[in-house]
Amino acid sequence: MNDTGHLHHHEEHLESSDMISDIVIGMSDGLTVPFALAAGLSGAVASSSLVVTAGIAEIVAGSIAMGLGGYLAGRTEADHYESERRREVREVETVPEREKQEVRDVFAEMGLSPALQDAITDELVKDKTRWVDFMMKYELNLDEPDPNRATKSALTIGLSYVVGGLVPLVPYFLVDAPQKALLYSCVVTLICLFVFGYFKSKVTGQPPISGALKVMLIGALAAAAAFGIARLVGG
Amino acid sequence: MNDTGHLHHHEEHLESSDMISDIVIGMSDGLTVPFALAAGLSGAVASSSLVVTAGIAEIVAGSIAMGLGGYLAGRTEADHYESERRREVREVETVPEREKQEVRDVFAEMGLSPALQDAITDELVKDKTRWVDFMMKYELNLDEPDPNRATKSALTIGLSYVVGGLVPLVPYFLVDAPQKALLYSCVVTLICLFVFGYFKSKVTGQPPISGALKVMLIGALAAAAAFGIARLVGG
Repeated sequence: MNDTGHLHHHEEHLESSDMISDIVIGMSDGLTVPFALAAGLSGAVASSSLVVTAGIAEIVAGSIAMGLGGYLAGRTEADHYESERRREVREVETVPEREKQEVRDVFAEMGLSPALQDAITDELVKDKTRWVDFMMKYELNLDEPDPNRATKSALTIGLSYVVGGLVPLVPYFLVDAPQKALLYSCVVTLICLFVFGYFKSKVTGQPPISGALKVMLIGALAAAAAFGIARLVGG
Repeated sequence: MNDTGHLHHHEEHLESSDMISDIVIGMSDGLTVPFALAAGLSGAVASSSLVVTAGIAEIVAGSIAMGLGGYLAGRTEADHYESERRREVREVETVPEREKQEVRDVFAEMGLSPALQDAITDELVKDKTRWVDFMMKYELNLDEPDPNRATKSALTIGLSYVVGGLVPLVPYFLVDAPQKALLYSCVVTLICLFVFGYFKSKVTGQPPISGALKVMLIGALAAAAAFGIARLVGG
């Protein structure tokens, strides 16, 4: 986010951070929700196999919902960019004076003098592509999205959800008494949530230990609440 | 997003669209994931009460995970903005020449001539607050976040998830045979997904009917996949 001087470098940086942000989105829910669901059911049912069935149904449901959600969000972003760009191209042709005023407004908001606003605007509008580029970025705050973003995003989010979601379920595959499996599931998942929270915080530039504890706490709270309420409802 | 001319108006616009986007985030997963989980379990268990228990455990788990996730995302955004702003204030004091060059770079990237770059920069850096504001917005692409955003976001996302998640569960409360309840649940939820998708598309400026169909399709796909796989695993 720091380097707008070198456009190409900047975009590569953004792309990899998009992927990391997709992994974080998928894995953070994947580690938390199936974990909490399994914990909740452990307090209410007699056999681990039911927990496994419900957990797998949840992983399938969650990964598809989140993956397709990510796909549609990516498509929407791309469509939105395209339609706004077409509109700007049209407006630059049909109402150039109004569009010039919008360029001036951007610089007026920066606090520049009217004389400079005019000078900049006159120079900027000489090249129509540059003019439209300017309107997209500085008037509308839109960056050109990666055309494959939607598909990549869907796969990354969905897969991360599956990977994250299988972690808390493993003990229920191996141990038949659900409350005993829950104990192992808590240990394994809370460790994974800590490690995940640590790297997530590193990547996003937050203090890693406190970030790791926060992520772990969310998981523990969700699991404890699900356990308590499922026991009330199911018991 | 269109009106950067009137800063105050712009912020109000953003704030209400933040809230709508939180409702969309919470409700879109809330309507989809518990629906698909319940559908999955309907193919694998004998009584609706188990589906209800699992569904409620999922709603609790999902709303807490998503709500707290939204809270942390909001806090992280605010912390990030504050720490970047402090850094810019410090840099404007300690390395003013480098910071001036960064201002010039922003305008160089717009395609303006060196003479204009210098003129703008000289005018902009006269007022240090304005200079820092400029760096935050145009070098780092950061808008000042609403201080209550994190809490509002958590409550809006969590509540929307609960509301959305209860819709597909209602038939399981009322009908004891899970596969019969599933039928009603499909009808009710697919209608709600369609209506939700319609308004979501309206709000985000997408074609509403095709948007509504897409949202409905995601829910149906997630539910069908969860049903099939849970039946394989649990049957």
